[in-house]
Amino acid sequence: MAEGARLAQALLRPRAVALVGASGDAKKNTSRPQRYLAKHGYAGTVYPVNPTRKEILGAQAWPDIASLPCPVDNAFIMLPAEAAIDAVAECGKAGIPVATLLADGFAEAGADGAALQARLIETARAGGVRLLGPNSIGIVNPPMGLTLTANAALEAETLPKGRFGVVSHSGSLLGMLLSRGAAHGLGFAGMISLGNEADIGLAEAIEALTEDRDTDAILLYLETVRDPAATAAALRGAYDAGKPVIAFKLGRSEAGQALTVSHTGAIAGSDAMTGAFLRDNGAIRVDMAETLIEAPMLAVGRRPSAQGRVAVMSTTGGGGAMVVDRLGLMGVDLVAPPQALIDRLAGQGIAIGDGLLTDLTLAGTKREVYSAVLTALLNSDHCDAVVAVVGTSAQFQPQHAVQPILDASPAPKPLAVFLTPQADESLRLLAAAGIAAFRTPESCADAVRALVEWRAPRPRPDAPPAGLAEANRLLAAARGPMSEAEAGAVFAALGVARPASQTIADPDAPGALAATIGYPVAAKLLSPDIAHKTEAGGVALGIESDAALAAAWAGMRARVAAAHPDARIDGLLLQRMEKGLAEVLIGYRRDPQTGPAVVLGMGGVLAEIYADAAIRLAPVSPDEARAMIDEVRGLALLRGYRNLPEGDLTALAEAVAAVSWLAVAETPVAEAEINPLIVKTAGAGVVAVDGLIRLAT
Amino acid sequence: MAEGARLAQALLRPRAVALVGASGDAKKNTSRPQRYLAKHGYAGTVYPVNPTRKEILGAQAWPDIASLPCPVDNAFIMLPAEAAIDAVAECGKAGIPVATLLADGFAEAGADGAALQARLIETARAGGVRLLGPNSIGIVNPPMGLTLTANAALEAETLPKGRFGVVSHSGSLLGMLLSRGAAHGLGFAGMISLGNEADIGLAEAIEALTEDRDTDAILLYLETVRDPAATAAALRGAYDAGKPVIAFKLGRSEAGQALTVSHTGAIAGSDAMTGAFLRDNGAIRVDMAETLIEAPMLAVGRRPSAQGRVAVMSTTGGGGAMVVDRLGLMGVDLVAPPQALIDRLAGQGIAIGDGLLTDLTLAGTKREVYSAVLTALLNSDHCDAVVAVVGTSAQFQPQHAVQPILDASPAPKPLAVFLTPQADESLRLLAAAGIAAFRTPESCADAVRALVEWRAPRPRPDAPPAGLAEANRLLAAARGPMSEAEAGAVFAALGVARPASQTIADPDAPGALAATIGYPVAAKLLSPDIAHKTEAGGVALGIESDAALAAAWAGMRARVAAAHPDARIDGLLLQRMEKGLAEVLIGYRRDPQTGPAVVLGMGGVLAEIYADAAIRLAPVSPDEARAMIDEVRGLALLRGYRNLPEGDLTALAEAVAAVSWLAVAETPVAEAEINPLIVKTAGAGVVAVDGLIRLAT
Repeated sequence: MAEGARLAQALLRPRAVALVGASGDAKKNTSRPQRYLAKHGYAGTVYPVNPTRKEILGAQAWPDIASLPCPVDNAFIMLPAEAAIDAVAECGKAGIPVATLLADGFAEAGADGAALQARLIETARAGGVRLLGPNSIGIVNPPMGLTLTANAALEAETLPKGRFGVVSHSGSLLGMLLSRGAAHGLGFAGMISLGNEADIGLAEAIEALTEDRDTDAILLYLETVRDPAATAAALRGAYDAGKPVIAFKLGRSEAGQALTVSHTGAIAGSDAMTGAFLRDNGAIRVDMAETLIEAPMLAVGRRPSAQGRVAVMSTTGGGGAMVVDRLGLMGVDLVAPPQALIDRLAGQGIAIGDGLLTDLTLAGTKREVYSAVLTALLNSDHCDAVVAVVGTSAQFQPQHAVQPILDASPAPKPLAVFLTPQADESLRLLAAAGIAAFRTPESCADAVRALVEWRAPRPRPDAPPAGLAEANRLLAAARGPMSEAEAGAVFAALGVARPASQTIADPDAPGALAATIGYPVAAKLLSPDIAHKTEAGGVALGIESDAALAAAWAGMRARVAAAHPDARIDGLLLQRMEKGLAEVLIGYRRDPQTGPAVVLGMGGVLAEIYADAAIRLAPVSPDEARAMIDEVRGLALLRGYRNLPEGDLTALAEAVAAVSWLAVAETPVAEAEINPLIVKTAGAGVVAVDGLIRLAT
Repeated sequence: MAEGARLAQALLRPRAVALVGASGDAKKNTSRPQRYLAKHGYAGTVYPVNPTRKEILGAQAWPDIASLPCPVDNAFIMLPAEAAIDAVAECGKAGIPVATLLADGFAEAGADGAALQARLIETARAGGVRLLGPNSIGIVNPPMGLTLTANAALEAETLPKGRFGVVSHSGSLLGMLLSRGAAHGLGFAGMISLGNEADIGLAEAIEALTEDRDTDAILLYLETVRDPAATAAALRGAYDAGKPVIAFKLGRSEAGQALTVSHTGAIAGSDAMTGAFLRDNGAIRVDMAETLIEAPMLAVGRRPSAQGRVAVMSTTGGGGAMVVDRLGLMGVDLVAPPQALIDRLAGQGIAIGDGLLTDLTLAGTKREVYSAVLTALLNSDHCDAVVAVVGTSAQFQPQHAVQPILDASPAPKPLAVFLTPQADESLRLLAAAGIAAFRTPESCADAVRALVEWRAPRPRPDAPPAGLAEANRLLAAARGPMSEAEAGAVFAALGVARPASQTIADPDAPGALAATIGYPVAAKLLSPDIAHKTEAGGVALGIESDAALAAAWAGMRARVAAAHPDARIDGLLLQRMEKGLAEVLIGYRRDPQTGPAVVLGMGGVLAEIYADAAIRLAPVSPDEARAMIDEVRGLALLRGYRNLPEGDLTALAEAVAAVSWLAVAETPVAEAEINPLIVKTAGAGVVAVDGLIRLAT
């Protein structure tokens, strides 16, 4: 058996489990797993381990791990931190492949806890034991009746089986999903609480569910991504296996997770990076907690659609309108039925309108009418997904109300059902038929938005810029912080044009102060001793003539002499002043959670103020960069908005792609930014006026 | 009895009702009201009216309205449109004060329907009958057992009584609220379906509920506002009576509801106007449908808080974090417990952290601990509202889990409870105690956000600008469309500075082409025959000298002679070119739905691209205008963002207030705009560079 398969078995299908620290006292959490395993019908062997008992809850208790009579696949260790480490050592001696640790007080609890966690990991490695946790609430796998957990949610009388696997950073979320799923008629496959991920991480948990035959979709509740490369591979593996991954992530509002010296950090907060990471690796990201269990059936068995046109039909104007309004607010592409479809239905005696909401209130809410319209929409090529809304009948005549929808299953395209009233039985009928049903118009719209934004994992572009080798050479040659000029040279090597420039080594030499590059120019003092040239009065803009240049130099020399008398002066840099339609920012950074990414936003402070930026994992192709341009709202200014002249979007896309290749630089770059990049009219190109590169330390 | 009280009685507490067009056939919708009235225990008299029956569902049937033996307060007319009009006439003859019309096919169905509706209104007026509808699903008033409705939602076995009144433009929404309310343990007071509002409108329905002794809060489901003045008065009346109004409005994504000649329409779409209307009149606006029934208890018996600081506590890290994250995303001011509070609890042996989420996972989830922390937060002056999150125990031990919360009621400040699991019994216990409980973290956060945004109705400012009389004179003198100069004069009269300007009547006269106002200037051709001066080449900017002015005039004259040979030329207008920190837009418009409003946004196209504008009902005081400045994200540029110099926000606020007084102009103004208004550094003022005023026609 391969390593991955062995781990999957120990996590999801253990043949025998040990409950280390089990108690017979029903008031103690440590009594729960044994009760739950019995209650929910786990067919494997359960060994309670407790040195002070002969018997626990009617089963023989064992004094220690060493004394267990048969091989165990997974030991659930419910001891305090120190004792838990000892138990892991015992697992190693006993050849138990996986230990699941409930205890907290490790890395999440400060420096002492981190030291403890390091010892825990060391102990596990030494013994050849894989760890889930610590601080893990355990594992639940309903198809196996496996409830290797202390989560009180398992007090429930029944444990609905289903085909959605779950990986969660929060233990309490498992209970939330179980109870809400049950109310929806939805069950689960394997559910894994990651805890601190001291060893087994997100990636391996996803892989275990990808291999699991009972899992059709993988639901993630994320608080972080600790190993981007492995997680990316796992997400892509799930996608390739046809198992959609639906993610809900916490921490969208926590600003400043990674402070950086430039603006890029503030614009592309770590959450936006995670969004790009999930999308570029083929996952579906939902915004609302309940959507996580309501949305998956939209994607199970499907691939992302090339277009995202959505049709909405309803037996109730009000209910339908709520979904349409919300979808519209989210910018989802709503489509009205084409005339041919309207005519065809009219031929069957069914009158529908030509609005964005196909409201059957007038056409009659008879079952045959609903069936005919739903079938027509599902089979029409004018839309890529259908939302069907059902009114009060879903509450009082569930079978009658949802039958036309059940009849349409399996649907040839994603079908989302929103039930206007509280209609639990209808929800259950739809769930049993594998149809995505929603309790609220907002969750329904959230899921449909997430679905239409779903993309296949993006392949790495295969054509690095010709100048990558030169850029590598320049980066390797850098000593200490790179100057603006050095950074500009790297960008230029990658293919991003710089303004024409000219260095005047000795501005005081007779006749030296003349711009051979043509006016207007900017003049910048060259000095290794002055970091902030603008503040030091070492920059002059908009110089139009030799005379103005002479005056600028005189002023600059006087200011510097006064404020920085000892500064070495290496001369004056002249740069041709560039004019364009707009100024944009291209950023690059290597995020500790999600790896290298490229960012495109408006120049200046507006990108920050409006949080208006597009982000992708780096590198990107020019085509992908073109899609980024379309995402930045403020770049409407360059896209011909209100008949404004169009910018050179081709050159801009190429510049974004060029910068993104810093991701493969041999000398690792932590962060880079061109700000501003001036975008000229179509065909006239772009120019990087200012930029910085910070190497990884 | 006053007219309003009489109407309220006929709507909500009719002593006798007629069911005109009643049927005994259970398959027909027209059989429903009689069944429902019997089922839900209406104590008044019910008269089925049907000329073809002697008896319906065991009750005597009457052949026509004229033959009814006793006075009737409300006749529910279930006949088709034409017959319904005849029935209204009969109601008039019989002295029935209110007729409720189910039939559709009136104003909502095009021109023919509108004509029919006009006849309906005429008939009602002639007979002294007040109309609810047409296209109304009727009235439900659970405390009275009144189910004067054909809404199938009343098939429910029980009809929970409650203290939330409802007014809805959608009939089907009543069923949604009833069924979802029942699942929450929430019932309703009077529910009124407005339909087309041919006569009785939103305002009178709100007034009826304001007067109703069984109503504590008024829930609105809005699609439009037809009578802003009356509705504003009704909303303020409800506020004054201590009955909070909670509104959910459809149509947030429908762009271009009212097309206008300037940008203001596009920025302040009718939905944004409605938002301003609701807020300025003291209503609370929620974003999600279910929040409408979950939120009211946060506001019942309370007044808006001066501050909106929110504390969150939880027995489950994951559940609490979801609410905190969402609140943070919405910009709600989350507060951590102060050290004194932490210390005091520590003195009781309870350890809480100093983070934004007070997570009791570590402190223990014992009832006493929860009680102590909740009580401490509710009585601490560091926060204005508390969110309490409960985990799995809410599902399995509802009484135990929510008891500390029940014990804290009545709470001294708003208390919102989010239950992480599906926990229907806990929801019911909380609802029964009058505590706002939420099913989802999103709805909980939506409600708390709406609560902290709640404001008392804004009083009309009492100090019109000194120049209002002069502005009135200029507006009255206007003939036809107002020119930019005429509009500028009105703004100047109201107190908004214009750039220094100078008119050169005959530019060809010797020596005429010289700017006495100082360079740089803009030159604009004056001609009554050229509407679009920029397109005609009649505008030149940035003129720096007499020579440049002469050249500009020569070019202008040549272009106009070629393109507009017959145009009369009245001379040349010179305006001093103004420089500032930013350009903003001040707009004014009279919205057909919500009345006069003032808008502040960024100048240029960015306000539109980012939908970044602040809106208020007009007029506003300078203080209120200052609050508007703080709402416009892009104006961070003027608020000292990132150490940028601060703009003259006092002058900007005064300019916004000045323009807003157009609301009381004697000559009605449909629309006005200053774009751009240049804002200079603090103390240096603002200047209106360009503007327009369009009078109402």
